[in-house]
Amino acid sequence: MSRFLAACRREPVDRTPIWLMRQAGRYLPEYRALRAKVSFLELCKTPDLAAEVTAQPVDILGVDAAILFSDILVVPEAMGMELILDDQGPQFPAPLQSRADVEKLRVPDPEQELRFVMEAIRRVRRRLEQVPLIGFCGGPWTLAAYMIEGRTSRSFERAKAALMGDEQMAHSLLGKIADALVLYLNAQLAAGAQALQIFDSWAGALGPEDYAHLGAPYLARVIQSLRRDGQPVIVFGVETGELLAQLAATGADVVGVDWRVPLDEARGRVGPAVALQGNLDPASLLLPLPELRKRVARVLELADRAGPGHVFNLGHGVLPSTPVESVKALVEQVHAHTPPR
Amino acid sequence: MSRFLAACRREPVDRTPIWLMRQAGRYLPEYRALRAKVSFLELCKTPDLAAEVTAQPVDILGVDAAILFSDILVVPEAMGMELILDDQGPQFPAPLQSRADVEKLRVPDPEQELRFVMEAIRRVRRRLEQVPLIGFCGGPWTLAAYMIEGRTSRSFERAKAALMGDEQMAHSLLGKIADALVLYLNAQLAAGAQALQIFDSWAGALGPEDYAHLGAPYLARVIQSLRRDGQPVIVFGVETGELLAQLAATGADVVGVDWRVPLDEARGRVGPAVALQGNLDPASLLLPLPELRKRVARVLELADRAGPGHVFNLGHGVLPSTPVESVKALVEQVHAHTPPR
Repeated sequence: MSRFLAACRREPVDRTPIWLMRQAGRYLPEYRALRAKVSFLELCKTPDLAAEVTAQPVDILGVDAAILFSDILVVPEAMGMELILDDQGPQFPAPLQSRADVEKLRVPDPEQELRFVMEAIRRVRRRLEQVPLIGFCGGPWTLAAYMIEGRTSRSFERAKAALMGDEQMAHSLLGKIADALVLYLNAQLAAGAQALQIFDSWAGALGPEDYAHLGAPYLARVIQSLRRDGQPVIVFGVETGELLAQLAATGADVVGVDWRVPLDEARGRVGPAVALQGNLDPASLLLPLPELRKRVARVLELADRAGPGHVFNLGHGVLPSTPVESVKALVEQVHAHTPPR
Repeated sequence: MSRFLAACRREPVDRTPIWLMRQAGRYLPEYRALRAKVSFLELCKTPDLAAEVTAQPVDILGVDAAILFSDILVVPEAMGMELILDDQGPQFPAPLQSRADVEKLRVPDPEQELRFVMEAIRRVRRRLEQVPLIGFCGGPWTLAAYMIEGRTSRSFERAKAALMGDEQMAHSLLGKIADALVLYLNAQLAAGAQALQIFDSWAGALGPEDYAHLGAPYLARVIQSLRRDGQPVIVFGVETGELLAQLAATGADVVGVDWRVPLDEARGRVGPAVALQGNLDPASLLLPLPELRKRVARVLELADRAGPGHVFNLGHGVLPSTPVESVKALVEQVHAHTPPR
């Protein structure tokens, strides 16, 4: 069995497995070469190209898992919202403003409106035999926040005002997104995804009491409705220090941790039953190699203290200015490490 | 004595004191009227106008403290960096790139290059007798991050690469900023500031081990070099859940907490010796009044559990879209609350 899947299940592994959020992306010349020819959204929607980009970091870096090249916002698009993805970041030109707007959203059939994703998964699986493929989606709160704000935000004030101020709208929107995600992730599993990560990226914008109301229950509902045959589920967000226990209680097998919480401290918050994923500060990859190595060693040391079940990753995505050579050095160093049993 | 100063010292108060970060700002029509005539930086640099804007929220809202209207970036400007403050947010068109750039920075004489700040403080004090005036500055790490990035950032990757990768540059830059801040804050105290807040706004971009190296020691050095006559010092940052103990150990009297950490939990992290400031989610002020009231009551309840020493505030600044009537309702509700002794 793959060491990535074993670590997700907190089973013994010979070496610490590693993959990186945004491991397929702008820092890779091979990716930039493709993106010079097609737009981001075209890349997501052309299964052969998405499969190629998904496989690039496995070939180039030797990471222990591939993650499907796609975007969390293709789901709101399939639910009926116009999506623009350009260099300004993602935008919904007509964000949700009312309960009536929520009523109009569809719960898409993933083998129809999101067929390009399933097709890409099938092609990656045919091409990539050596490591597991991670499918993914955004968390209900994060998607709802994007759909109401229309773009990323510092304060998420519109989303908070709408969802905290109108319980009926909140439950109708978050419930509909959760329904869509259950179908979407089940279709990904059926197409061949061997693990799933739910990016509740903006979880940390909510205080713990709000997350217990607007975030965690919908994550749990999604995870508990999956028809899984052993495929692990990873949940991840940034600024989630106060939310780790809630994330661990959703039914996820693995909790991703950003670089703000040391992994031994995170273990205290999540309890013994889940694996941990993380948590090198992505900026570490911009440092001179000796300084990078010290920081990688420190993450491994704290992970060892946290006990079995560690998937090495960054605390957030690879930064576009990251040197590829530094990523290779990182993978090599992690692969030299044997965690305790 | 003012109930704000008493609460900062964890002394008994009749009512919970309240002031709000960015209480003088765009959400106030009186402020917008002035800003229609002068730029932000002109406002900061014209003592009569800065004094007027500083006093507005005291007159309009009845808050228990005024905070000087200014910007943390006037210090790097006085150190020799060109500063542009416009609707795009603050920018340094020539950010720091090398040790040589750091060498060129001056430690300004606050009664010369920052005289407009001291003059504004003296005018506010003459005009505003009923409540104390809070002076302020940015934290060394936060200012250094702005000076290297040239603008705000999501990842602070340039600042991290420069400061984590070059220890000599880090200590030379952070040390020089700390020296400038000591002179600046001492001059504010001499001019009449009755309390000080240090905004280490981007503290939470650093993991705890990096903050222990690049953040907290320079904060402590500034605080411990102040010539105070009882004026309390407040330290504040966002996303500081893992840094609260370090912030409490700097010598500050009060630790500001963002909305992510419940105040009773924060008390466990800071220990018994400091007061707490915070921590309503600023988006709460966009909610219908009954929902706002529930959230305010909850903050007060958790603050009571955290024990004596609570200054009510938001977890971050007032959002520009905030209705003034909601802020008035907030102040009224907090002023109806008698904390435990």
